[in-house]
Amino acid sequence: MGKFDHLQQEAFQANMQLPQLHLVIFTFGNVSVAGREEGVFAIKPSGVPYAELSPDKMVIVDFDGKTVEGKLRPSSDTKTHAVLYKHWNKVGSIVHTHSTYATAWAQALRDIPIFGTTHADHLTVGIPCAPPMSDKMIKGDYEYETGFQIINCLKSRKYSYEEVEMMLVGNHAPFAWGKTADKAVYNAAVLEEVARMAFLTEQINGKAKRLKKTLIHKHFERKHGPDSYYGQ
Amino acid sequence: MGKFDHLQQEAFQANMQLPQLHLVIFTFGNVSVAGREEGVFAIKPSGVPYAELSPDKMVIVDFDGKTVEGKLRPSSDTKTHAVLYKHWNKVGSIVHTHSTYATAWAQALRDIPIFGTTHADHLTVGIPCAPPMSDKMIKGDYEYETGFQIINCLKSRKYSYEEVEMMLVGNHAPFAWGKTADKAVYNAAVLEEVARMAFLTEQINGKAKRLKKTLIHKHFERKHGPDSYYGQ
Amino acid sequence: MGKFDHLQQEAFQANMQLPQLHLVIFTFGNVSVAGREEGVFAIKPSGVPYAELSPDKMVIVDFDGKTVEGKLRPSSDTKTHAVLYKHWNKVGSIVHTHSTYATAWAQALRDIPIFGTTHADHLTVGIPCAPPMSDKMIKGDYEYETGFQIINCLKSRKYSYEEVEMMLVGNHAPFAWGKTADKAVYNAAVLEEVARMAFLTEQINGKAKRLKKTLIHKHFERKHGPDSYYGQ
Amino acid sequence: MGKFDHLQQEAFQANMQLPQLHLVIFTFGNVSVAGREEGVFAIKPSGVPYAELSPDKMVIVDFDGKTVEGKLRPSSDTKTHAVLYKHWNKVGSIVHTHSTYATAWAQALRDIPIFGTTHADHLTVGIPCAPPMSDKMIKGDYEYETGFQIINCLKSRKYSYEEVEMMLVGNHAPFAWGKTADKAVYNAAVLEEVARMAFLTEQINGKAKRLKKTLIHKHFERKHGPDSYYGQ
Repeated sequence: MGKFDHLQQEAFQANMQLPQLHLVIFTFGNVSVAGREEGVFAIKPSGVPYAELSPDKMVIVDFDGKTVEGKLRPSSDTKTHAVLYKHWNKVGSIVHTHSTYATAWAQALRDIPIFGTTHADHLTVGIPCAPPMSDKMIKGDYEYETGFQIINCLKSRKYSYEEVEMMLVGNHAPFAWGKTADKAVYNAAVLEEVARMAFLTEQINGKAKRLKKTLIHKHFERKHGPDSYYGQ
Repeated sequence: MGKFDHLQQEAFQANMQLPQLHLVIFTFGNVSVAGREEGVFAIKPSGVPYAELSPDKMVIVDFDGKTVEGKLRPSSDTKTHAVLYKHWNKVGSIVHTHSTYATAWAQALRDIPIFGTTHADHLTVGIPCAPPMSDKMIKGDYEYETGFQIINCLKSRKYSYEEVEMMLVGNHAPFAWGKTADKAVYNAAVLEEVARMAFLTEQINGKAKRLKKTLIHKHFERKHGPDSYYGQ
Repeated sequence: MGKFDHLQQEAFQANMQLPQLHLVIFTFGNVSVAGREEGVFAIKPSGVPYAELSPDKMVIVDFDGKTVEGKLRPSSDTKTHAVLYKHWNKVGSIVHTHSTYATAWAQALRDIPIFGTTHADHLTVGIPCAPPMSDKMIKGDYEYETGFQIINCLKSRKYSYEEVEMMLVGNHAPFAWGKTADKAVYNAAVLEEVARMAFLTEQINGKAKRLKKTLIHKHFERKHGPDSYYGQ
Repeated sequence: MGKFDHLQQEAFQANMQLPQLHLVIFTFGNVSVAGREEGVFAIKPSGVPYAELSPDKMVIVDFDGKTVEGKLRPSSDTKTHAVLYKHWNKVGSIVHTHSTYATAWAQALRDIPIFGTTHADHLTVGIPCAPPMSDKMIKGDYEYETGFQIINCLKSRKYSYEEVEMMLVGNHAPFAWGKTADKAVYNAAVLEEVARMAFLTEQINGKAKRLKKTLIHKHFERKHGPDSYYGQ
């Protein structure tokens, strides 16, 4: 038994949920799970198909992006995960996918408008789409800078990563996170479904309006507020 | 054997149909089944994933929304169900989902137009979309008021709940009901399919017209009229 | 062993293909199979879910729509099938579904344009959409008249039912047929896929043009002509 | 053991992936695998459903399109494959499908714009759509000419078949290829997903812009460049 077995096991199970939830094809995504005490995270190895994954193949990496344990190379997105763990110290798990509808919104460079209570049950604002990165960032340490693009987008909007647990990187694809791996994967799936509903809403009514504030707050509070009681 | 076992069993089976019919992901929906003689209904417990449901976990609630039996908290939508059972005394089962296409119409704040016989086989009018609730209702007893929003929408249109067994709550999602659990779940699935077809119909022909009256009545009567003979 | 066992067996197997090919939900469709020598056809019983079908439940009906054998009532669309068998004496099987994309075109009252070789591999013209029936026909013997609506639509366009084996009934849904049950079901599935592709084609290019004649004829001839050699 | 057994086995397995990846229904597609040393390729037999395929049914054909071994007729698209193998000597496998979204773009006669990094991870340009063939080519040796249409389209755009491994034939459907069967099938699936995302992107933002050059090159280089390190 290695000391990171529990992280590898959790990361393995979380990664295996992505194809089951139809969020990835081939290797178009990855989940990592952090061990805050150990100061590391377990992440999917690079380019390995889901059918060939096993817990022991998960790579252990520290919050500076250095491999601590594992024979395989970690996902090419590892530095993005590392930056987020380093700066957001209450995040326990990060998910990156190229899920179809969320990615289409990212490619369209648009925030996903808040049109209904399905969205409001999870966050009170549109799902932010970070602008494409500057050429300097792209030509620099790209995956590392992607992490900062995410952090800076939330900062510029004055959103907390504890309240907004999902977003889009413009021209790229979605990222989601949470305190646990199950929550982070759940958020990635909710984002995809909300993205799909918002696309259809605009097709059905080109002038569809943002949900009104009272309804946004009612739904969010019943799920997340101090007196939360939500659970369908 | 408890006295509500049959209701719990029926409610369990009906809830399990929702993910099988692709009407819900995670816990985005619930079914309840009423025992008219006992004056109660069995409903999904709050926030429990479908994979972990079992008949004994179904909560027994009276028509005022008070829990009569069960260790778990009932669905957060319980009061909406209670109001409907109390006012509509021939309803035997109620289904609430966030199914994708029906929810998109609800978010677009539009009735679903009656474009074809698939729709007319089930009801003779567009599927009504109740307006978003007033701020007062939202800030009040929200789920309770949602029930009245549904009842009042049908009333204002002069529709009977025995003839129109499905509708949308604006900015929220669909509700469907019926004399039995099977019929209520069937109605929820028909609503989703009709919503999808209507979306596509408008995309294919932006000037698509409402089905003509003779055809609406012919299809509805052959299924529901005194001389009904429908059954594909 | 009854004398119609082979027809019942074939009709059962063909009906069971419809949900597997995602062409129907619940009881939204039916297949019949004709025995030309016996002057009858076997058809799905009325309103029975696919999961409860068995060969012996298929009803035997003559070409005037009268039940010859079977305890259950035949599908409510039986007379439409009967009319087609009576007038089109080389048809061996008929399929009726409410498949999503084909039904949306029918509701939009539009022929499905011929945009590519997937379509041209099967027919050389747009897939015809019969106009909605007259009030007189609707109020009369409705299902019987639906058969004539189909026959008259092909006649008015000078199409042969041996060449055009699929079409839409306006405001209603698709019908397909063929010499064998397998071919009729295949045609119903091809129609749905062609309907879906044509919808997407117009969304991608609002000015998409009809396939040019040389290409239509090349593809159709290689599959159906005297020197046919097609088979991907 | 025959001398072409390994090719037949590979071609069989690759063909069986097409329905699993939802790229074909019925017989709407085919994969071939080349043996460069032997100067032949194994290809799906003509018109045989996927459920009835087996390795020994794969037909062995030379690069002029002549059958070398096999009792069944090779796919009607065999000559297209032969032309490509003859002119592109580093291609090891070719896939042809009528996958829904890619075919819709082909029917719309449009290149698929490069909108995001999912696309850029695989190629640096829009996915080319060859114009419909001339009447002379269509009336001539059609499938043979289809091969030249593909080759000439890439030539006219100055693209290398080693860099652009997927494209559309206008009014027809997609072709993809690669050094191995797995890579060719992968490319066909990526093309379908990229086609779907691009369709949605334009629906969400009618003025969506092409991905900027720095991002295109960054993503492509990290996967394909001399210092490649990609692998999600």
